[in-house]
Amino acid sequence: MYSLTIRRHAFVAHALKREAFGPARNLHGVTLIVDAEFQAQELDANNTVMDVVRASRILKDVLAEFHYKNLEENPALAGEITTMEFLARRIHDGIAARSANRFRGRLKITVRESPEAWAAYEGEVTAKPRPGRKRA
Amino acid sequence: MYSLTIRRHAFVAHALKREAFGPARNLHGVTLIVDAEFQAQELDANNTVMDVVRASRILKDVLAEFHYKNLEENPALAGEITTMEFLARRIHDGIAARSANRFRGRLKITVRESPEAWAAYEGEVTAKPRPGRKRA
Amino acid sequence: MYSLTIRRHAFVAHALKREAFGPARNLHGVTLIVDAEFQAQELDANNTVMDVVRASRILKDVLAEFHYKNLEENPALAGEITTMEFLARRIHDGIAARSANRFRGRLKITVRESPEAWAAYEGEVTAKPRPGRKRA
Amino acid sequence: MYSLTIRRHAFVAHALKREAFGPARNLHGVTLIVDAEFQAQELDANNTVMDVVRASRILKDVLAEFHYKNLEENPALAGEITTMEFLARRIHDGIAARSANRFRGRLKITVRESPEAWAAYEGEVTAKPRPGRKRA
Amino acid sequence: MYSLTIRRHAFVAHALKREAFGPARNLHGVTLIVDAEFQAQELDANNTVMDVVRASRILKDVLAEFHYKNLEENPALAGEITTMEFLARRIHDGIAARSANRFRGRLKITVRESPEAWAAYEGEVTAKPRPGRKRA
Amino acid sequence: MYSLTIRRHAFVAHALKREAFGPARNLHGVTLIVDAEFQAQELDANNTVMDVVRASRILKDVLAEFHYKNLEENPALAGEITTMEFLARRIHDGIAARSANRFRGRLKITVRESPEAWAAYEGEVTAKPRPGRKRA
Repeated sequence: MYSLTIRRHAFVAHALKREAFGPARNLHGVTLIVDAEFQAQELDANNTVMDVVRASRILKDVLAEFHYKNLEENPALAGEITTMEFLARRIHDGIAARSANRFRGRLKITVRESPEAWAAYEGEVTAKPRPGRKRA
Repeated sequence: MYSLTIRRHAFVAHALKREAFGPARNLHGVTLIVDAEFQAQELDANNTVMDVVRASRILKDVLAEFHYKNLEENPALAGEITTMEFLARRIHDGIAARSANRFRGRLKITVRESPEAWAAYEGEVTAKPRPGRKRA
Repeated sequence: MYSLTIRRHAFVAHALKREAFGPARNLHGVTLIVDAEFQAQELDANNTVMDVVRASRILKDVLAEFHYKNLEENPALAGEITTMEFLARRIHDGIAARSANRFRGRLKITVRESPEAWAAYEGEVTAKPRPGRKRA
Repeated sequence: MYSLTIRRHAFVAHALKREAFGPARNLHGVTLIVDAEFQAQELDANNTVMDVVRASRILKDVLAEFHYKNLEENPALAGEITTMEFLARRIHDGIAARSANRFRGRLKITVRESPEAWAAYEGEVTAKPRPGRKRA
Repeated sequence: MYSLTIRRHAFVAHALKREAFGPARNLHGVTLIVDAEFQAQELDANNTVMDVVRASRILKDVLAEFHYKNLEENPALAGEITTMEFLARRIHDGIAARSANRFRGRLKITVRESPEAWAAYEGEVTAKPRPGRKRA
Repeated sequence: MYSLTIRRHAFVAHALKREAFGPARNLHGVTLIVDAEFQAQELDANNTVMDVVRASRILKDVLAEFHYKNLEENPALAGEITTMEFLARRIHDGIAARSANRFRGRLKITVRESPEAWAAYEGEVTAKPRPGRKRA
């Protein structure tokens, strides 16, 4: 099994509004260091899992939802508890939506908020049926 | 699959008393940088694999057996060869014993002794039957 | 010349409200990784620049002004542009105020917001005249 | 499952001669930071996955094909596109060839060319039939 | 004293053609991780040593001479021994030439070729007399 | 000003036998990550501060006093409080004694015991009068 991993970061403000989170209930911020690991059984004709520049651009595009933002002002996240685990899953699904016609396989997203704590989500990226076309 | 990882360190003296270990047979010491990765299929109601503060405290409690200690003076380790692999397993089992009523799933422990070498143990944490109660 | 350095981090939200800062004008957040380097010409009777536990506690106390906070809500920072450089200076002065009766010498604070950018402030910590006592 | 990982580096020149690689088509160079992770279900009699000194030496021997070399001058690599993924596989197979009589299990090679991008190959190391002996 | 540091990397091929360099006489390559530290006594009106985006762009522009290049093919470097120390100095002077009308002060360049070895050059950046204008 | 830095590590057991050190009074151990920074005003004929292989070997030789050792059994250290600051000074002086006929200038030694704490000593390396020869 092969993999290719790209790292980028995002500067994010948020608040974890549950009793359990103690001081993290306050509006505060984190530098998220995000690794996107694309996994494949075989390499393509260029001996790559995926083009490294394209992979980096997709990750950049997906992180644009968070980078230099306050997640509390994002209507799409209203009511969500934006833990590292949640963000790893959301980044995973964002990349899957953007790359599914070019990449199929497992994708693992790791989100680091400090040198002492990080979270990850790993799941399958599958081809999407094209809109407007039925699968009989 | 989700995971949450916590990192802490411990300052440990030990000796690896086998011919094969060369100079490591001497009493010497290492800074163990220990990562505990808790894995789960689903998130809990707080969108976490586990509470990060609790996870950090469990790891701290388990490392207390080693931190600022000489393993050669620990009767529970008498006769053991305390390699990184052995310590990873022992930390795994220590965390499992402390967290099994709150966490079930795979747990991976990585133990780093230098920037050039590390070891890991990964295994399942399962619920323990409560003492004094039979399972029919 | 000797030095002792302690590292801790803080989770901070802020906004840099000047045209020049582009997207950083938005409310966003950063993990600040902060190094406090205490410098001394000579060691004390314990062969240390300063007690490592005390140094870590002082840094923790000073970072409490920022950790898990939104700097925009802090009246003491109203109107300030809270760049890394500014924060390095403020942390420096906070440590100086707390440690001046125990530590005199140069103190360098480094503040990292990402793996690609950091800032520092270095200056002298001098003894403060005790309040209520004049120096003739 | 246990694992032991060894890290070494190699200084390599190469060129990726395909349209898709843009400026990487030029002859340029990279520091490859290589992690070799040996995985095993059980520990040996010394409580190790493998002897750490031997593992490091095997990795060193395999990297000698690349270290301080220009891959474009290596006949064995003529016509190959020497991406990180390709090199991870080649290092995997080189270690497998050297260690198969001592190590059997999964082996994962990670190759880092910068703090922002890395690739890996993971596969089984199996015992080789001895030359000159047929498998009926 | 304040400072701001920016980190970028470059992928470089070269050969150190002197007896003393042993295997480094071969054409080989390195990932140069380059830190540019701008030092200033006072902050500007934005509470910065220098604009972080501009600093990063200047460093990128200067590294373009090396990134994805073979230094042996650069006529401007003909006959030079392109050690890390030499490259640190050259990057310093390149930044000085580009930034002297905006930045005056000390500039320190650190060049890392591996996790085990790095070099630096530190010197003053001074204003250049504009061409065609005499200083009486 | 130029510098060249070499990093190596050592596995050390010791005890800090003073009330002030709390649990560090126990015999325990640390991985010391040691940086030796050689500083020079000018480069030599090879465009280096010092030969990198020689510098690494000198550091290795000096660390041999500590690597895989228990400092409490070293008669030369009897009665010493072997803090990071003390060890940085001792390593400095050891390197100075071995390199003074080849290197003159400032030498800075940094000793890291964890990702959260490190110490340094910086001082001049000067030529030693040869034994048996007077300076009039």
